[in-house]
Amino acid sequence: MEQHMNLNETHDSDLKSWVESANAPECPFPIQNLPFGVFSIEHLQQPHVGVAIGDYILDLTLIEQAGLLSLENKVFDQSKLNPFMALGKAAWSRVRRDVSNLLNIDNAVLRDDESLRSRVLVAQSEATMHLPFEVMEYTDFYASREHATNVGCMFRDPENALMPNWLHIPIGYNGRASTVVVSGTDIRRPVGQLKAPDAKAPIFAPSRKLDIELEIGAVVGYGNEMGSAITTSQANDMIFGYVLLNDWSARDVQVWEYQPLGPFQAKVFASTISPWVVTQEALEPFRVSGPTQDPEPLEYLQQNQAQNFDIKLSVELLPQDAQQSTVISNTNFKGMYWSCAQQLTHHASSGCAMRTGDLLGSGTISGPTPDSCGSMLEMTWNGRDPITLADGSERTFIEDNDTLILSGYSQTATYRVGFGQAVGKILPSKSN
Amino acid sequence: MEQHMNLNETHDSDLKSWVESANAPECPFPIQNLPFGVFSIEHLQQPHVGVAIGDYILDLTLIEQAGLLSLENKVFDQSKLNPFMALGKAAWSRVRRDVSNLLNIDNAVLRDDESLRSRVLVAQSEATMHLPFEVMEYTDFYASREHATNVGCMFRDPENALMPNWLHIPIGYNGRASTVVVSGTDIRRPVGQLKAPDAKAPIFAPSRKLDIELEIGAVVGYGNEMGSAITTSQANDMIFGYVLLNDWSARDVQVWEYQPLGPFQAKVFASTISPWVVTQEALEPFRVSGPTQDPEPLEYLQQNQAQNFDIKLSVELLPQDAQQSTVISNTNFKGMYWSCAQQLTHHASSGCAMRTGDLLGSGTISGPTPDSCGSMLEMTWNGRDPITLADGSERTFIEDNDTLILSGYSQTATYRVGFGQAVGKILPSKSN
Repeated sequence: MEQHMNLNETHDSDLKSWVESANAPECPFPIQNLPFGVFSIEHLQQPHVGVAIGDYILDLTLIEQAGLLSLENKVFDQSKLNPFMALGKAAWSRVRRDVSNLLNIDNAVLRDDESLRSRVLVAQSEATMHLPFEVMEYTDFYASREHATNVGCMFRDPENALMPNWLHIPIGYNGRASTVVVSGTDIRRPVGQLKAPDAKAPIFAPSRKLDIELEIGAVVGYGNEMGSAITTSQANDMIFGYVLLNDWSARDVQVWEYQPLGPFQAKVFASTISPWVVTQEALEPFRVSGPTQDPEPLEYLQQNQAQNFDIKLSVELLPQDAQQSTVISNTNFKGMYWSCAQQLTHHASSGCAMRTGDLLGSGTISGPTPDSCGSMLEMTWNGRDPITLADGSERTFIEDNDTLILSGYSQTATYRVGFGQAVGKILPSKSN
Repeated sequence: MEQHMNLNETHDSDLKSWVESANAPECPFPIQNLPFGVFSIEHLQQPHVGVAIGDYILDLTLIEQAGLLSLENKVFDQSKLNPFMALGKAAWSRVRRDVSNLLNIDNAVLRDDESLRSRVLVAQSEATMHLPFEVMEYTDFYASREHATNVGCMFRDPENALMPNWLHIPIGYNGRASTVVVSGTDIRRPVGQLKAPDAKAPIFAPSRKLDIELEIGAVVGYGNEMGSAITTSQANDMIFGYVLLNDWSARDVQVWEYQPLGPFQAKVFASTISPWVVTQEALEPFRVSGPTQDPEPLEYLQQNQAQNFDIKLSVELLPQDAQQSTVISNTNFKGMYWSCAQQLTHHASSGCAMRTGDLLGSGTISGPTPDSCGSMLEMTWNGRDPITLADGSERTFIEDNDTLILSGYSQTATYRVGFGQAVGKILPSKSN
């Protein structure tokens, strides 16, 4: 059956689901999205894999047990997406089509089987979301020209803000996977070495310049062999999907520690991702070309198709007792200079083995104006220009008990492909 | 029984084994060492955990199956050391004592049971060694003052070679775990972006400055919770053991890419470790104080016991058709400015979660003279002063088909605790 189905049918604007909440105009999880996550509810012995649909989650672990998927082997019985991601693009498409069919308003299999439906459809409000995949390794890139220029101005030389290598290399560095956590996990304010410019020696104290980094994380579905490079086209195929990513950063720790080997304790204490992995296939309608790359990239980095994605992004800050959050930034992923495919290609270029579950942060996503920046460092120009919140309070960096909320979605004329949110609340440092 | 045994008895100089080759004066694996590894031989369905003794390996997976260990649960049936390492220090000591007893010349249990002995004792010459543990994450430090000074002189400013932060922070950065390989694995020369100082743009080509970094890797036995710091004393207890580590480096890639976020493709293509993890307990007799730290470290980094180890190290280079290798460096681990315990403490200081199987590279181990340096970059002063090999050929950096051999051991008056070797041969780049 699936051989005859057009791939693009899963994107069709006219598709509707029998899950009614999925058909609402601004619903982040319509039948055209179908992001994957891992959830638990009270009676489950272990977390299950699910797909978001409207206000519900379709329990794929049970759907697979019920024999309703066309994969040959079970991959949704291990409380993480890695076994499924390792199968590759054809399997990803096949499951997407299976799920799209099952949820289609015209398909009676689940729609009219109340007993089965009540078991496999779970209200999101009753579910606890978990890390959707085992993060094998985490690499963070630096692909926004605006962000790299801003940081270069503040930390180094405004006259030569962009390093000479930046226009040639998708600059990145290895991050820490053990502290990648799912949205909703509270984050402890880090302690670290701080040194004021005029101080003789550093002190060890809670960071005073705790910041966000608004990023998109590309999730590697399957890897390459050590010693073998990949093309940008192969890299594109290896990306299973994308998440929102907040790469929390302690700017005062960073500025003192980062030379010559790069950021370390300033970044390793926590990174928050959204619970739903939006598949690359769901984002195909939003594929756009990025900025013109001049100078032309070296041959191994050249692209034969558009590799950016039009994803609207925002950051909100919610103080402890505030009635409402304040939107402090609106930006878009489409303006990134280096694409995720180029970053992945570069990552493997030396012969580095990539693996199922590797997470590649795009780098902070900043536009040209302060209110389109992806870090408070940039929004406030390192604290010089405080932000005023809806409750009248001001912020230069994050204060204790502030909650930071990243959101994102892509939009056609008729439907939205939402990422949901990546939320984190900052708890006071333990040494306070 | 074990409650009455003195811990130090496993270090006793008078201990002898019924495995005769273990009693030879310069044997790296006497009964006082007992390092752990993972090996396979032809008839085994999967790799087993073993302990090196003389020219043999004691098969711990079978010893455990035979009920000869005092641990309550099976941990040696998974072809990696991680389950055992996660048990912590008391279990490590208990198994060390069990094995020491079983191999003791006066113990008849194995010695006189020819049938069992022939099954559990495997000649090292017949075994293939595997990665001894699953490397969760790999972090590389920079703890030799001589090395940091040399690199600072060459890459930056000779007048200010040591960065201002270096004497305060055990500087480190996240590395790549997916390309940590066991000794004997051939390494493909990496390709990367190279830019001559006077060139207008970079090229993409095989590295011309391929180098070693002679390091010791500390293997983390068990971790800490995210958000919780540890003391240097706790860090010491968390270290299961040590391996030799060659952190292969492409110096020409490094110098072009490393600013501002640190080394990336220059380092991620391969790191080679020795197959035997020498336990910290076996190294206790070789614990020494490191250099005086001035300025005094911040309180969280202060140590209440000696935290360095006296380990003699050497590097040999063996060209493709040469009759013999040439020793190109002799140095010692004891001179490192920052200890592994301080590095681990700093790693967790921001709240970073450490995990069983984390590998912490010490940083390149260099002494004060060219022939005690741990990198060819330093030995040849970035290619200025070539090394002459035994066959009359010269080297500035590594050539294709060269084999590099790291060796190390600690020595008392009567016995040696050897690390064996970390060996890697460089194959030509694929694009050649």
